Amino acid sequence: MRHLVLSFTLLATILMCGCGDTICGDNYAYDPASGMIHFDEPARAEGQQSMLGYAAEPLDVVRVGFVGLGMRGRDAVSRFTHIEGVEIKALCDLVQKNVDNCRGFLEYVGWPEADGYVGAEAYKELCERDDIDLVYISTDWASHVPIALYAMEHGKHVAVEVPAATTVAECWQLVDMSERTRRHCMMLENCVYDFFELTTLNMAQQGLFGEILHAEGAYIHNLAEYWGAYQDNWRLEFNRTHRGDVYATHGFGPICMALDIHRGNRLEYLVSMDTKSANGAEIAREMMGATEFANGDHTTTMIKTSRGQSIMLQHNVFTPRPYNRLYQLTGTRGFANKYPIEGFTFAEGMLPADIIPEGAHIDPHGFVPEAVEMAIMETYKHPIHREIEDVARRVGGHGGMDYVMDYRLVYCLRNGLPLDQDVYDAAEWSSIGELTATSAKHNSMPIAIPDFTRGEWDRLQGVTFYMK
Amino acid sequence: MRHLVLSFTLLATILMCGCGDTICGDNYAYDPASGMIHFDEPARAEGQQSMLGYAAEPLDVVRVGFVGLGMRGRDAVSRFTHIEGVEIKALCDLVQKNVDNCRGFLEYVGWPEADGYVGAEAYKELCERDDIDLVYISTDWASHVPIALYAMEHGKHVAVEVPAATTVAECWQLVDMSERTRRHCMMLENCVYDFFELTTLNMAQQGLFGEILHAEGAYIHNLAEYWGAYQDNWRLEFNRTHRGDVYATHGFGPICMALDIHRGNRLEYLVSMDTKSANGAEIAREMMGATEFANGDHTTTMIKTSRGQSIMLQHNVFTPRPYNRLYQLTGTRGFANKYPIEGFTFAEGMLPADIIPEGAHIDPHGFVPEAVEMAIMETYKHPIHREIEDVARRVGGHGGMDYVMDYRLVYCLRNGLPLDQDVYDAAEWSSIGELTATSAKHNSMPIAIPDFTRGEWDRLQGVTFYMK
Repeated sequence: MRHLVLSFTLLATILMCGCGDTICGDNYAYDPASGMIHFDEPARAEGQQSMLGYAAEPLDVVRVGFVGLGMRGRDAVSRFTHIEGVEIKALCDLVQKNVDNCRGFLEYVGWPEADGYVGAEAYKELCERDDIDLVYISTDWASHVPIALYAMEHGKHVAVEVPAATTVAECWQLVDMSERTRRHCMMLENCVYDFFELTTLNMAQQGLFGEILHAEGAYIHNLAEYWGAYQDNWRLEFNRTHRGDVYATHGFGPICMALDIHRGNRLEYLVSMDTKSANGAEIAREMMGATEFANGDHTTTMIKTSRGQSIMLQHNVFTPRPYNRLYQLTGTRGFANKYPIEGFTFAEGMLPADIIPEGAHIDPHGFVPEAVEMAIMETYKHPIHREIEDVARRVGGHGGMDYVMDYRLVYCLRNGLPLDQDVYDAAEWSSIGELTATSAKHNSMPIAIPDFTRGEWDRLQGVTFYMK
Repeated sequence: MRHLVLSFTLLATILMCGCGDTICGDNYAYDPASGMIHFDEPARAEGQQSMLGYAAEPLDVVRVGFVGLGMRGRDAVSRFTHIEGVEIKALCDLVQKNVDNCRGFLEYVGWPEADGYVGAEAYKELCERDDIDLVYISTDWASHVPIALYAMEHGKHVAVEVPAATTVAECWQLVDMSERTRRHCMMLENCVYDFFELTTLNMAQQGLFGEILHAEGAYIHNLAEYWGAYQDNWRLEFNRTHRGDVYATHGFGPICMALDIHRGNRLEYLVSMDTKSANGAEIAREMMGATEFANGDHTTTMIKTSRGQSIMLQHNVFTPRPYNRLYQLTGTRGFANKYPIEGFTFAEGMLPADIIPEGAHIDPHGFVPEAVEMAIMETYKHPIHREIEDVARRVGGHGGMDYVMDYRLVYCLRNGLPLDQDVYDAAEWSSIGELTATSAKHNSMPIAIPDFTRGEWDRLQGVTFYMK
């Protein structure tokens, strides 16, 4: 019914705007009633069920196949050798040497041998095995979805690096396949598990910021020296051919968690604006002889939620700046800020008196003193961190958050619990790429954000990280 | 001609969008050709001339009348007694006591007596005097324009507190009156003269950031304890009845200077998004018994320029956060950041070798070391600051920038030079209020920003602060 209504709207649009005009694309059109561009939202097919709150049968041991071993995948293999209840069954990459290195590493740490697969289609053989539970995908962005779909189709749970998908249509493919096959599809958004983010999530859930009104996230990372590190230059090529916030999830994911997105709250619309491409174009000219470059050097996006909140996102991998994911929460009673300095601000009476060191002053116009901040970080440490932070910091991976992520994935699979991040997170967070590109292309026209839960965003209430 | 073309577009819009619909107002309409809302842009009337680069006849002594002595005006009177070549002729306020206090102050510092005017219409008498050159307006926002218009009409130059105007129509009134009467109308945007802002402007003009691509500005100031300080609660009342970024100029002005706005560059369009009102509504309920409140607690705006740059602005006077005007410049070769910590980042080779202390490392991924920052701030000190910083810091007013502003105003008037900020700055920076309110009201629809220079934004090249 919902779908029918929308289609009628789109039809009306096409008639009214005299289409062929600029505000119309293959899978979207301007709707004068809402004053926004709407993307097609496919109806749920027969035989699919919502994956909200889905828990699979518990696994005594999680048998893993890794696809993509170049950068992130290689590190993941290493981290998995520190997790209990895991067997590494198979290793797949485009490049023989990457497979050999990982196999050599397993031998070095005394783990059983894993089978190797090499080549662009080799992941299919890996997915077709019947002794694998989880396919862990760390390939280039463009191949995430074909591999994930194939894996789920062959009965495997999927963990896939960020962004899980590169178009809105691909996001729907992940959702539909996960709903049809009843397999998990978790995007590997590690920043959700970073210490500041998870502590503030805990604080937010306990009401320390009052009602959160505004949140910010970003991926500002000067990649000048890193472009050459990607196999066949795929990352620069992706930026050359794609406008918009193509890598939003590190900043966006933790914010969505703090705002209960599709757990009682939903993303309604966004507008996005980019700068021209200066440095990006110059780098691509030098490295690839490119004459055109799509991705603006700096992209800014604003998103409105159904609770009347706003989110601001930024993407910039091109200019000299300090690394910055922003991660900022503005609430009616408190404020959290991660970059360039971590800090908290609170209205009077929000902090429990017993954690305020004697003589410390809580100023609603400034950051709390360092001693108070330390007390906050300890008091509101998330139960997950409390459980495993020592191991996490030792194993490492971006300061430990990568290990926490892998640990949680395996923990939930072994215990038959819903995963922390579901396929709707993967779709929502990844869809930002094409949605922002579309807004930027149409002079920042607002874009309605698809509801990948198909109307069920209000069924779950709040984010839960399940523990046994 | 320009006007005729636009009117035709608006007419076409009204026919096409079946108006009466939501994307249409008294003075604006949606234009399907551009995908934006356009405001009416009145043609220049017979007998008006552009004020770009305008210099008035030099004044040996600047004879001033102050209107509004409650907060900012009282401080201005005090500062003016430290400036050479000034006579304070008249003092006007709604409240007798404010006038008496300022008269008492002048007596205390041994200055000649100034005439007092009291009442809502008393500014007219002041403006009608023939022994005043400059009317300095520090009243509530809503009365800025009527007073400024009356003053110019009576041959006075005008200096008016921020924002100079509260609607787009009022912005045009200031422009038209200034063009017709050939009187200066300068908005008193003090932050243009702050030490970090003016130093970075100097650096920007010398190319240290390469090409500036993105800039940020804000007014984030928790006014919780201050609302009661405004005569008849006018500021809270204004926020109660006005959505949008109603106080944009402190963050926006210095950015516009760094981006050469209407001096070779122009503001093309904006989109704005606000949160719901939570704290604002609560304060107004408590203080005024208000049941409705228009201004969102946090408002974010993005602006695109004709050079393909983006600007991000924020407004939040309601929630507990540290004071923050952002003031950030992102360039192809360098980066400047003022809040919450001042810092610079540069690509290799951008800083002159002789200002880098021995052993200091310039990291394109981090802020320069403190010693380098200090060397930068000294090396690139703006000539204006070099001339008067000692006096400015002694006289004070927001750390000295208020004095620099007043000094420059008087200096340029006495020397017959163009002012640093012209009436188009006042209009552009003030128009953000209604433009953002309109975008926010229409789900962040893009709004074309009026060109208050009427097509002459490219005639001047770069910002010049004239010195004799």
